[in-house]
Amino acid sequence: MVDKLHTKYLLSEDQIPRAWYNIVPDLPRPPEPVLHPGTKQPVTPDDLAPLFPMALIMQEVSAEPYIEIPDPIRQIYKLWRPSPLFRARRLEKALDTPARIYYKYEGVSPVGSHKINTSTAQVFYNKQEGVKKISTETGAGQWGSALALAGAFFGVEIEVFMVKVSYQQKPYRRNMMETYGASIHASPSNLTNAGRSILAKDPENPGSLGIAISEAVEVAATSGGTIKYSLGSVLNHVLLHQTVIGEEALLQMALADDYPDVVIGCAGGGSNMSGLIFPFIGEARKKGLKTRFLAAEPMSCPSLTRGVYAYDFGDTIGMTPLVKMHTLGHDFMPPSIHAGGLRYHGMSPLVSLLHEEGILEAQAYHQISVFEAKEAGQERVILFNLSGHGHFDMAAYEAYFAGKLQDFEYPAEAVAAAQQRMPQVV
Amino acid sequence: MVDKLHTKYLLSEDQIPRAWYNIVPDLPRPPEPVLHPGTKQPVTPDDLAPLFPMALIMQEVSAEPYIEIPDPIRQIYKLWRPSPLFRARRLEKALDTPARIYYKYEGVSPVGSHKINTSTAQVFYNKQEGVKKISTETGAGQWGSALALAGAFFGVEIEVFMVKVSYQQKPYRRNMMETYGASIHASPSNLTNAGRSILAKDPENPGSLGIAISEAVEVAATSGGTIKYSLGSVLNHVLLHQTVIGEEALLQMALADDYPDVVIGCAGGGSNMSGLIFPFIGEARKKGLKTRFLAAEPMSCPSLTRGVYAYDFGDTIGMTPLVKMHTLGHDFMPPSIHAGGLRYHGMSPLVSLLHEEGILEAQAYHQISVFEAKEAGQERVILFNLSGHGHFDMAAYEAYFAGKLQDFEYPAEAVAAAQQRMPQVV
Repeated sequence: MVDKLHTKYLLSEDQIPRAWYNIVPDLPRPPEPVLHPGTKQPVTPDDLAPLFPMALIMQEVSAEPYIEIPDPIRQIYKLWRPSPLFRARRLEKALDTPARIYYKYEGVSPVGSHKINTSTAQVFYNKQEGVKKISTETGAGQWGSALALAGAFFGVEIEVFMVKVSYQQKPYRRNMMETYGASIHASPSNLTNAGRSILAKDPENPGSLGIAISEAVEVAATSGGTIKYSLGSVLNHVLLHQTVIGEEALLQMALADDYPDVVIGCAGGGSNMSGLIFPFIGEARKKGLKTRFLAAEPMSCPSLTRGVYAYDFGDTIGMTPLVKMHTLGHDFMPPSIHAGGLRYHGMSPLVSLLHEEGILEAQAYHQISVFEAKEAGQERVILFNLSGHGHFDMAAYEAYFAGKLQDFEYPAEAVAAAQQRMPQVV
Repeated sequence: MVDKLHTKYLLSEDQIPRAWYNIVPDLPRPPEPVLHPGTKQPVTPDDLAPLFPMALIMQEVSAEPYIEIPDPIRQIYKLWRPSPLFRARRLEKALDTPARIYYKYEGVSPVGSHKINTSTAQVFYNKQEGVKKISTETGAGQWGSALALAGAFFGVEIEVFMVKVSYQQKPYRRNMMETYGASIHASPSNLTNAGRSILAKDPENPGSLGIAISEAVEVAATSGGTIKYSLGSVLNHVLLHQTVIGEEALLQMALADDYPDVVIGCAGGGSNMSGLIFPFIGEARKKGLKTRFLAAEPMSCPSLTRGVYAYDFGDTIGMTPLVKMHTLGHDFMPPSIHAGGLRYHGMSPLVSLLHEEGILEAQAYHQISVFEAKEAGQERVILFNLSGHGHFDMAAYEAYFAGKLQDFEYPAEAVAAAQQRMPQVV
């Protein structure tokens, strides 16, 4: 029996997972193939080679149940892993609930979020294949700073296209990326055809994650092979690298002598949630458990609950391969909410498939209700992922306390129109 | 032999110290008494009772070598303790130095700094003696947020006087304190005689830590016993609570199979530095080691290197008892540098005595040179304390990258004038 006030469950460093968990063999059916945007035929690894190193492409399509974590990556993981798992006793008390609430906390990493679990791995594999420079996009800067630090670890140059409104309004994350040595551009920029075409139509365009992806992909695709591209969520290999979160949480729930009835994650592109949930889905399948899995997403950009499950581009301009996912339409412009990373038109294909198959439930929430939320519940065991410390999003608290935080209605018409412009795949 | 890439040294929760280390019995001579500002005679515990609970007053004057940490405090410490100790291998490489550099990292606490080590203890003892409300001051908000969270832990109301320039320019820490339920006033305020007297002379006064202390002390002293006062640094009992840092670091250096030749801390009031260094001073004394101890302080407010060692007030207005310390003069107004907590006219009496006795060296630095610093050195083992994550001070990085960060010459004349206005104690 654990001490009543004992609230933190720690692992030793030799319990950092030695392999990432790959959910693909545990899916009820194989993932849908990624399609070439021109031919609409399944892409080959060679089609993806201009963007990614081959090791990551092989992880993207792997059906192996576990993929070994190379030792240099595990050594770097030791800077912040294993991350703590907490029992949120004060939250239970504040909610006056009989539920037992646990959370895994990824905010202890040097960049303050889970993103560095995959940026470290991605830069490692790029470095191994001789890549000297990587381009990427970032919303509020969380992913960009994680890739920037990983670039500094391995001596790989990092170029970041940062959504313009965040570039202007959130200088701290930008300063952090600069401190780590990355170069940053406000997106849309004049540096790419994608950026110029957006600015020609709308010089005041505030940017979006989809546009920044178009710019970063273009930089890599037109570099003649000298620059690769890196994405911070959505793709299979990105979610794979995050499974260290759930693998550790499984060990820590055992330390707590408890097991979750419900596992919850917040979902933008899906990576932090999948990192926690996937190993628990594997466990449920292996042991026949009836664990519930729940995705929470923003009402202003509810791809999983309101999007269609269809082939769509990953970026706004339409440069990327087509992936089957829940999408609001690749050129849908989500309203500006404080959580920049949640403003993305699509959802990870693996997460989408799990939702389509009824394994993962989803619910959309308005942001103000999230700040106000205090509810009593039933006796059950809840586990969620607190993916970052949020120190650079404190402006949202200021707006909330000042009564200035706004909710945005779900923009049904804009989504319907954007979905009309999606690529047609028979 | 440790793994070459192994950079983090962890302890288990049962290695959280069970007692705080009190340096007083290990000092070369007893601390100078605290004097009553009117009579200039040593104060009695009863003189301090309007401001502090008796348990903390007893710790302030204790000569016991160890003071047991009550179990409820240790249970709360488990939320962030033991904190990690890192070997800074990448810094060693960047400096191209044969030195081995270690740092203890206190930024993993929920408020992001070491301050919560003492705020938790202070609120606990206040609560035990029935106190329902505590007043305090804060510069940029680090101490205020630590006390606010501790207040929330124990259900004690917290009222914070925040230096006005920070209140206006650093809303994130203020939002954090509000989130924890504290009430915050910009200082100088119209709520106290101290604040009103400053505003009468200078309505645009930007505030200082010394003024905010005057306001918070006045609120407690004039409350008829319903409100106590709490200080985040300087006093003996505050430094005592921070010694968990150094006690853990001693165990962790043993894990690393190494021992520091030099232990370094940055010093504003002295609490984070003392927390790390004091247990190593005790160890050096016990074992006859020749460890060097070094305080780094800002050139713009260099109390230890340029101040006089004399009796002075702890606040600007002159309401507190007189303490013997290195001081620039209690009404000296330091120039506005980014690190608000380092803008204090005095230095902890215990730290001052150690410096006076030649046990602790001190050096003052300009802030720009700190951002630029990259130097090669000799082979030796260096340990320092990284007392917080600095996420709310990223504006200083922005100013530095933009070439807008300013250094301030040491204001010798202003200090000399302020020192003329100090109380005369024969």
